[in-house]
Amino acid sequence: MIGIVIVSHSAKVAEGVKEMAEQMSQGRVPIAAAGGVDDHTLGTNAERILTALQQAYTPDGVLVLIDLGSAVMSTQMAVEMLPQEQQSRVRLSDAPLVEGAIVAAVESSLDRSLEEVHKAAEAARQMKKIL
Amino acid sequence: MIGIVIVSHSAKVAEGVKEMAEQMSQGRVPIAAAGGVDDHTLGTNAERILTALQQAYTPDGVLVLIDLGSAVMSTQMAVEMLPQEQQSRVRLSDAPLVEGAIVAAVESSLDRSLEEVHKAAEAARQMKKIL
Repeated sequence: MIGIVIVSHSAKVAEGVKEMAEQMSQGRVPIAAAGGVDDHTLGTNAERILTALQQAYTPDGVLVLIDLGSAVMSTQMAVEMLPQEQQSRVRLSDAPLVEGAIVAAVESSLDRSLEEVHKAAEAARQMKKIL
Repeated sequence: MIGIVIVSHSAKVAEGVKEMAEQMSQGRVPIAAAGGVDDHTLGTNAERILTALQQAYTPDGVLVLIDLGSAVMSTQMAVEMLPQEQQSRVRLSDAPLVEGAIVAAVESSLDRSLEEVHKAAEAARQMKKIL
């Protein structure tokens, strides 16, 4: 099963998205949130992201959803702190944060592969909400 | 100036996105959050959305960002509770919640029209985070 990490500049956003994704995947998927920085302002922190990667890691792989481009560098730093054999099982997603996380959690709960979960999350870009 | 309403099933997500969008637009844009339901579980509530619409309303218009399709109906119910002349100044966005809200807040802070803010938020679908 693929683990999922939610990286946001906002601790509230990361936690809330985690709760939504857990509910949509009926708690079957390891999901970890890494949001905000230690002084409770908005930002991202590589150590927090590393902790979340370790919490959600499975040998099948981990998909990381990110809110804004400026969080990508913190995420890349965190990935580099993992043991090398784990690094190759982590993918960073370009998907929209909330929509991508929910789709990824559902797909992971259906035992899809890392590549399948990654692609499904990216496809959430085209999600139509208003019919 | 265009007001922005953030509708999410999660109160944390709605509040956190509001804080991010306020920071990105330097507090110049009226932004209101409507997240969760009264028993603190995940869901949406038309009365809460109505309150947020009233808080963020400006005669220039309001753009509403929504997390999932199932929140669209609650939002439509809330819009119908507004006076008719205000209803015509509210647009529901199909954009991704976090990315769309941030782009919309920045565009509104630049005094763009409702149609311009709406289009810019939709274009956030194609945002590349990982370069």
